[in-house]
Amino acid sequence: METLYVIKIGGNILDDEMLLEAFLHKFASLPSRKILIHGGGKLATRLAEQLGVPQKMVDGRRITDLETLKIVTMVYAGYINKNVVAKLQSLQCPALGITGADGNSILSHKRETAGLDYGFAGDVDKVNAGWLSQMLEQGTALVVAPITHDGKGQLLNTNADTVAQEIAKVLGSHYEVTLIYGFEKAGVLLDLEDDQSVIKKLDATYYGQLMQSQKIFAGMIPKLDNAFMAIREGVKRVIIGKGEELDLLLTGKTGTTITHE
Amino acid sequence: METLYVIKIGGNILDDEMLLEAFLHKFASLPSRKILIHGGGKLATRLAEQLGVPQKMVDGRRITDLETLKIVTMVYAGYINKNVVAKLQSLQCPALGITGADGNSILSHKRETAGLDYGFAGDVDKVNAGWLSQMLEQGTALVVAPITHDGKGQLLNTNADTVAQEIAKVLGSHYEVTLIYGFEKAGVLLDLEDDQSVIKKLDATYYGQLMQSQKIFAGMIPKLDNAFMAIREGVKRVIIGKGEELDLLLTGKTGTTITHE
Repeated sequence: METLYVIKIGGNILDDEMLLEAFLHKFASLPSRKILIHGGGKLATRLAEQLGVPQKMVDGRRITDLETLKIVTMVYAGYINKNVVAKLQSLQCPALGITGADGNSILSHKRETAGLDYGFAGDVDKVNAGWLSQMLEQGTALVVAPITHDGKGQLLNTNADTVAQEIAKVLGSHYEVTLIYGFEKAGVLLDLEDDQSVIKKLDATYYGQLMQSQKIFAGMIPKLDNAFMAIREGVKRVIIGKGEELDLLLTGKTGTTITHE
Repeated sequence: METLYVIKIGGNILDDEMLLEAFLHKFASLPSRKILIHGGGKLATRLAEQLGVPQKMVDGRRITDLETLKIVTMVYAGYINKNVVAKLQSLQCPALGITGADGNSILSHKRETAGLDYGFAGDVDKVNAGWLSQMLEQGTALVVAPITHDGKGQLLNTNADTVAQEIAKVLGSHYEVTLIYGFEKAGVLLDLEDDQSVIKKLDATYYGQLMQSQKIFAGMIPKLDNAFMAIREGVKRVIIGKGEELDLLLTGKTGTTITHE
């Protein structure tokens, strides 16, 4: 099977022009099929402030009222997505920027949680693998803003990590998928204070041992649980580390590589 | 050759939820290949006001400084484009929203005018007919925000009428193209005060006669000159009228239809 890279980058790259530039050069030069998923970094929060739209966060998730949905749609799908696409084109990397509404690529439903209204937040129901692979087979990199739709005309704000994971899982039957989570740390750390304590390789057995001895930082557990779930559901490997070190992450020189065994 | 509709809608539809809804129903039900080009209506101006970014217009064209480019990219390519796409999907019309950066579909250069700096305004150099027709042949409607790029990573704000015209001309060799300019009037009027005075059919000879007898409203002349140029360069017919009457425009019941003879 052909290789596909599904790469999620976080705010630390999007908010830093030089890191973004460095990352996009490396992304553009990847010879394989590739998908980039991005959020909006601090830009959405800043625009909300400028417009006087108060932002509510619960458990690290943004409560998306109608005004906030408008803001994230403008920032993620408009400003960030199109600037990234234009930059990739200038690097001779053919690119197409999409949301989950485009090509009906990601269907979701409005999250319903007893006692808490997340507003226009979407939980993913279905990724359109056929359409995505059709686009990829044209040699086009896909740049995905994490805005999905419910099929009834409503856009929904969706967690970018989740979007990356769902895309990677579904395309696991079409490609040999490497899913990369770029974040601000060098990888999964044994000691949160020591950037040198990166766990280079992690499989389910070792993860179980680390969990038992409580050596995993609580904040990493949802990310790692998701990574192992992705691997059980068809993703070949997951790499966690600094997005701007993309080349080193792929060769295992930095970051944490998670595999089945 | 297959039929292709290239339809530009204006602010009067985008600013009116009910008109937009009516238009999109009609657009969705067109059985042919189709492309929709939209601007942003009053939304971009309103957002600029809210953000305290002063807007300068010269001869009806927005002077696009860097902050204004950001605003139009957010509004056109983000908010409007993605809401239209989601709405079309809900009407069972497969749709893909793009800018000229996506798929390298519209290359432009920064406008240089002696004595006047239009800022980040783009004049179109090249439309990628191959990529656009490849997308259309998948049965997907294209929704185009008039933001183009210079191939060097810079997005540029581009006149939506021009984008529609350039796309229509280039695809004239692939399809039998009808180019539709939706605007607030019922068509080209003999008497500007009388909405009933629509000229139903206009060819070059009749246009010449009307020009000589000064019966054409000056504001319409650039639009009509562009329409005749499009027809000389491969577009089958141009229709001017109210976008929300799309079905009636196509059957010639309303609007002005412009053909070669």
